[in-house]
Amino acid sequence: MYDLLIIGSGPAGVSAALSAEARHLDFLWFGSRSLSPKIEKAECIMNYPGLPKVTGTEMRDAFLSQIDGLGIKIREERVNSIYDMGGYYTALVNEKMYDGKTVILATGVSNSREIPSESRLLGKGVSYCATCDGELYRGKRIAVVCTDSSFEEEIEFLAGLASEVFLCTSYKDCGIRRDNVRHVVGYPTEILGENRAAGIICGGETVEAEGVFCLRPCVTPAALLPGLAAEGGHIQVDRQQRTNLPGCFAAGDCTGRPYQYAKAVGEGNVALHSVLNYLNGTDER
Amino acid sequence: MYDLLIIGSGPAGVSAALSAEARHLDFLWFGSRSLSPKIEKAECIMNYPGLPKVTGTEMRDAFLSQIDGLGIKIREERVNSIYDMGGYYTALVNEKMYDGKTVILATGVSNSREIPSESRLLGKGVSYCATCDGELYRGKRIAVVCTDSSFEEEIEFLAGLASEVFLCTSYKDCGIRRDNVRHVVGYPTEILGENRAAGIICGGETVEAEGVFCLRPCVTPAALLPGLAAEGGHIQVDRQQRTNLPGCFAAGDCTGRPYQYAKAVGEGNVALHSVLNYLNGTDER
Repeated sequence: MYDLLIIGSGPAGVSAALSAEARHLDFLWFGSRSLSPKIEKAECIMNYPGLPKVTGTEMRDAFLSQIDGLGIKIREERVNSIYDMGGYYTALVNEKMYDGKTVILATGVSNSREIPSESRLLGKGVSYCATCDGELYRGKRIAVVCTDSSFEEEIEFLAGLASEVFLCTSYKDCGIRRDNVRHVVGYPTEILGENRAAGIICGGETVEAEGVFCLRPCVTPAALLPGLAAEGGHIQVDRQQRTNLPGCFAAGDCTGRPYQYAKAVGEGNVALHSVLNYLNGTDER
Repeated sequence: MYDLLIIGSGPAGVSAALSAEARHLDFLWFGSRSLSPKIEKAECIMNYPGLPKVTGTEMRDAFLSQIDGLGIKIREERVNSIYDMGGYYTALVNEKMYDGKTVILATGVSNSREIPSESRLLGKGVSYCATCDGELYRGKRIAVVCTDSSFEEEIEFLAGLASEVFLCTSYKDCGIRRDNVRHVVGYPTEILGENRAAGIICGGETVEAEGVFCLRPCVTPAALLPGLAAEGGHIQVDRQQRTNLPGCFAAGDCTGRPYQYAKAVGEGNVALHSVLNYLNGTDER
């Protein structure tokens, strides 16, 4: 049982991890050494105190060298879901499980909006995890919605199981070449189905499907951790970065605007201090 | 009329100023090129993302060179008080007045506690400003409470006016040498007086005084800006760093714990974005 699981390696996750290390917590940190797609893409950051006029990659490199200098490890594993076990949390990474007394969610915010009926049919034919649920669709017809090419390995895996795949990507230059995959560029306007997913509408075309996989870098908060209170796509937190679930904190873009590096760094720090208070039993709630 | 007045030059003020410059606001920033006494004294900061293992002076120098590189000016003037003029704010710096549509308070938090009866007798013989109120005590007996040697010029000024000065400093090595000044090291336990200040108790000694000057780096929030809601010495703010007064925002240690550089930097950024929303008329409140 770890003291803390940190989910996400953008500036909020970095800030939380640096303070967790400084306070000698026994923690796991899930993310990527590219830190976050948004950091990498930033052209010029003028207003982050301490790093004058940096590009996103310069900021990333500064953060990475600080992390490496302290010997902090980023686990490059994708957390598919987290469960509130009543007193602790369990994070699922494909077939592996990690338990933590507390969680900091620093998962960023997705540019892609939820598809109508997506959350209603989640777990009823709609899935976010190829590894977890792919086997259920062996020999069946499925749809896959993908917003980032980093998921193509998962699409290959699904295409190896399903009889037919209708693939909707929000980017061009898709690398999938398989006879049983039909690819369109576009974002679905609806997932069909009454009590179970039955199909999808994309680009005006209606396609039948027994399963719909939505593969995106950021899972919506409530889908990641059932029971988590969210509003307008953002996790609800108070000034101490506490969510509605005791021991679960959130920081950075996932808690709302402004989407700023400094704000994320500040919230990651506050979340970690709230974790300390929670572990010490001095959380006032 | 400026868009914004930023009060304080610790990490929260720095962050607000950098973003104000990036967004081309017409703003004034009051503080000091030493930034804050707390930054200077920090031995080693491990957990600020982007500046690995820095001393406080290294962090200060990094912030200063960034500020200077952008041509941002710090006005080295002490704001004595701010008034809510109903729609804008006026900051008083001795005899000068500055008007701003909005204010960000980044005034830090004082280690020195309020003296019993201090706020009750504020404006009734208790004063925070030698320049503003010194003349009222010409030829009279006063007490001066001082927590920082940077105020000794003001003590000299007061000693030149008053007949007798009872000086209580919370530090040793006081540089004041005047026949009419009696100096003790200690912090007062009470200010005496029913409807007006009449004396002070310090080190068990009771001394009569018609005026009591309290000279400290951080004025208590409610004393700085009448009407500002505070709790436990901290300015009350919401997640957008809004205070109870429309157009007045607060950031950094003055809003509460944790007293952390990253937290202050984050709040300064958020406060500035709330200023932008307020000036654009998109503040939701």
